Amino acid sequence: MFEEALAAFRTALGADHVLTGDALGRYGADTLPITRQIPAAIRPGSVEEVQQVVRIAAAHEVPLYPISTGQNWGYGTSQPMRDGSVIVDLGRMNRVVELNSELAYVVLEPGVTQRQLFEHLRQQQVRLWLNPTGAGPDCSILANTLERGFGIGPNGDHFMAQCGMEIVLPNGEILRTGFGHYPGARSTWVYKYGVGPYLDGLFTQSGLGIVTKMGVWLVPEPEAFEACYFMCNSESQFGPAVEALRGLLFDGVFRGPVNLLHRDRVLIMLERYPWDALAGRQLDEARAARLAHEKKVAIWNGVGCIAGSREQVRAARQTIKRALRGKVSKLAFLSEQRLAILRTFPKAISVLMNVNVPELLHSLSSSYGMMRGTPSKVALPLAYWRNRRGTPDTDDMNPARDRCGLMWFAPIIPMTPRDVADFRAVIEPIMRKHDFECCITLTAVNERCFDCTLPLMYDLENPAEATRAMACYRELSERCAEAGFYPYRLGLQSMEKEVGRDDIFWTVATSLKRTLDPGNILAPGRYAR
Amino acid sequence: MFEEALAAFRTALGADHVLTGDALGRYGADTLPITRQIPAAIRPGSVEEVQQVVRIAAAHEVPLYPISTGQNWGYGTSQPMRDGSVIVDLGRMNRVVELNSELAYVVLEPGVTQRQLFEHLRQQQVRLWLNPTGAGPDCSILANTLERGFGIGPNGDHFMAQCGMEIVLPNGEILRTGFGHYPGARSTWVYKYGVGPYLDGLFTQSGLGIVTKMGVWLVPEPEAFEACYFMCNSESQFGPAVEALRGLLFDGVFRGPVNLLHRDRVLIMLERYPWDALAGRQLDEARAARLAHEKKVAIWNGVGCIAGSREQVRAARQTIKRALRGKVSKLAFLSEQRLAILRTFPKAISVLMNVNVPELLHSLSSSYGMMRGTPSKVALPLAYWRNRRGTPDTDDMNPARDRCGLMWFAPIIPMTPRDVADFRAVIEPIMRKHDFECCITLTAVNERCFDCTLPLMYDLENPAEATRAMACYRELSERCAEAGFYPYRLGLQSMEKEVGRDDIFWTVATSLKRTLDPGNILAPGRYAR
Repeated sequence: MFEEALAAFRTALGADHVLTGDALGRYGADTLPITRQIPAAIRPGSVEEVQQVVRIAAAHEVPLYPISTGQNWGYGTSQPMRDGSVIVDLGRMNRVVELNSELAYVVLEPGVTQRQLFEHLRQQQVRLWLNPTGAGPDCSILANTLERGFGIGPNGDHFMAQCGMEIVLPNGEILRTGFGHYPGARSTWVYKYGVGPYLDGLFTQSGLGIVTKMGVWLVPEPEAFEACYFMCNSESQFGPAVEALRGLLFDGVFRGPVNLLHRDRVLIMLERYPWDALAGRQLDEARAARLAHEKKVAIWNGVGCIAGSREQVRAARQTIKRALRGKVSKLAFLSEQRLAILRTFPKAISVLMNVNVPELLHSLSSSYGMMRGTPSKVALPLAYWRNRRGTPDTDDMNPARDRCGLMWFAPIIPMTPRDVADFRAVIEPIMRKHDFECCITLTAVNERCFDCTLPLMYDLENPAEATRAMACYRELSERCAEAGFYPYRLGLQSMEKEVGRDDIFWTVATSLKRTLDPGNILAPGRYAR
Repeated sequence: MFEEALAAFRTALGADHVLTGDALGRYGADTLPITRQIPAAIRPGSVEEVQQVVRIAAAHEVPLYPISTGQNWGYGTSQPMRDGSVIVDLGRMNRVVELNSELAYVVLEPGVTQRQLFEHLRQQQVRLWLNPTGAGPDCSILANTLERGFGIGPNGDHFMAQCGMEIVLPNGEILRTGFGHYPGARSTWVYKYGVGPYLDGLFTQSGLGIVTKMGVWLVPEPEAFEACYFMCNSESQFGPAVEALRGLLFDGVFRGPVNLLHRDRVLIMLERYPWDALAGRQLDEARAARLAHEKKVAIWNGVGCIAGSREQVRAARQTIKRALRGKVSKLAFLSEQRLAILRTFPKAISVLMNVNVPELLHSLSSSYGMMRGTPSKVALPLAYWRNRRGTPDTDDMNPARDRCGLMWFAPIIPMTPRDVADFRAVIEPIMRKHDFECCITLTAVNERCFDCTLPLMYDLENPAEATRAMACYRELSERCAEAGFYPYRLGLQSMEKEVGRDDIFWTVATSLKRTLDPGNILAPGRYAR
């Protein structure tokens, strides 16, 4: 059966695009201590080939697992949910199908990376920004959107900024959502809902079809843009700062999500784990405090952006200053002009302001650039925190290839100081108990809640530490559920248990999947039973 | 079979809540020249009773048609898609289940009206605003959201401002979306997507379940708020004004949707149709121009709002002035203070500014109030335009009861002057040919498209005119489809034809419906085959 399927795939795609054996290496690389049996990977080059692929799979009852660029770090990378799934690598389908500079959108295929779109926009000389995720320049925009990922700054809720899909259904038919199924429709990429049931959500965090095209809204470069950085030097400032932040978000002062990074989250991006001193134990408070002092990292470090007309940006600056007065230890705004000054006079400013300007520039430029649509690897070094092999140049980072141990736990927390305190009271003892650093970022994905991203970094090559990481994840997930905090996204480490709950939601999700995919050929086990 | 079902409904709900015969009058009243046979209406008072209702209906194969307040004016009011459907009137379920003033949301049952929530917020003394639709104070908030309706001002995209649902499925089970299906979840009403496929969209514009609770995000009263009014006295200003408006929307200058009302749309809200002079013919250009001159109505009349801190509102005002300079004939901002001055010195200002202040105040106060969350009947008089019986006091308006002829055609248009011109070139000759006024409003529901609402007003009691209205609708809908413009919403006048198209989207929508509703008991024919 399987051999016949392979032969049919070879006929349909050409032998070069059907990989087996040693050629599968990269698809098995993962930052989780989990290994799936992957019998083959196939690389269709067009929608028609994807249609052939699902038909062959259905005929031979071979499960498929579609990936775009396979960089789902910390959630399973390229690995399928179940053993025996054939990887459908959509990386060859990497066209920017349409770019509309007037209405500020693009239509993308799955293989288009953040870097590629960034370069494309530059080449076309259109003043439009994408909103990058922290997963790095080589990550697929379409795939991150389907996982409902996010960035900071304008259009940071990626699913919110998605409009229109083309989907190959498990039966090989093509479904176009929104108005896309109507001939000659003009509003496919400018109005999300179309008419009748709004179906796009069904194809996010699911396996009901293979999305082969997606409309993505971009941000027209505003007249003025500044990044806003603020710091709380004591935990007592955190509550009032969160209340003030929520008010600012309600008033639309910030453009898009704002990040609050805990001290330790910043440290692990700047430092390497001191193996000699700690030997697998967590970073202790005294050492963390000393490092933070050296690097001028506060207990809480906020970053968001303001954009619009010159008047709007000035008003936003004034409003933020007024709202955060007394609630933060430091508040600074960064513009292109100020960055240029720092770049021109690094030494003088280092002395004058008692900061290490080159080091500051490195981290500031990256987060500043990310908010203006420049993808960056600034968030990737954290994956290398407990990697004993050392850390490559940032530009060359690939956490799965380099055998980094990384697992994300990402629950949603209502945006109140009380909810955050309750949440920390649950997770901090668990992290301590399992000897991992508690490096949280709270991202205000809307005005009412935080998406907390908590990375578990461990030594993937030390089986005991990997087992401890899995146990820690399990405990986090169970205790948080008891306290009412649930994750916005699942990975290989948690999928089966989560969807296996006795719960009408997962029953409905599974029955909708079976309607479109009666043979359960497509990504079996992914966000469904 | 049907009599047995009725008996079972009586046992479950009490005889008082099962209506037949003459008691059905209000459910058959409609602004369309279409009459459905309605055998009964039942009024469950709780979620448990709704569960019983769907189980009884399934057992006896009796189709149901749920309504909330039954005020879907111009799309079918309370009438079901198919003859023989029992109306499930959810009006008794009208609790505000939860009000969270810190995180600015409410959880509502289907029967909660705009007026009721407005009063509730006032009684509770919380400074939160809802976003009303133009359908009037007695319209259900939940139902308008399920139809993906909209208003102007903050949170104007009602489905965007919806978070979390409780749904009685056709099998009687209860599905809670987002995180709502998890015990003790804290983020059900603050994070839209939950984990796994995002299902809420499936339950909008559909008949897959009866939504019995919904989270609705409210707007915390901002420090400052102003309405912005602008006018174009010539069509040549329209294109540049649209381009400028799109730029302002991209920069987040306006809070929520902005309306562009054509002259004739404003006139029909202010005037009555001159039967003696026109006798069923459309308002001619000379008369419209004269009326517009008298009433000081421009060719295009824009309204939107700006809100936030005092600094932000000032900056928005400056930015709008700069962007619209030379592109509009008039630009004015209205605040509470200015309204108070107008109210205090109506005569002096009337003389000084050469306007009729009391008349101005009436229309300004309503649109200004709507944007600040005060529901109003300001948009309802248009339904009475060709009603020969005359017009009741605005407070007493009910277009279906008063036998107004009203039918909405509401296609989506990309936000470019060229697309709007193409669209008008299609519709204007059709409206002229059928002798109806072309009274469009363009609502910028997002930064990239307009929702064009075009009302067909006709004399419902004149069969020839009603037939002409139906023919006009058909032609609008067909010619617009050929030109690429499709409606965002369907009514009784268009549903069957639309969902009957040979189109994979409607096939998929129908098969998803059959999965949850194998007996096709719930709202058969509604946004599915």
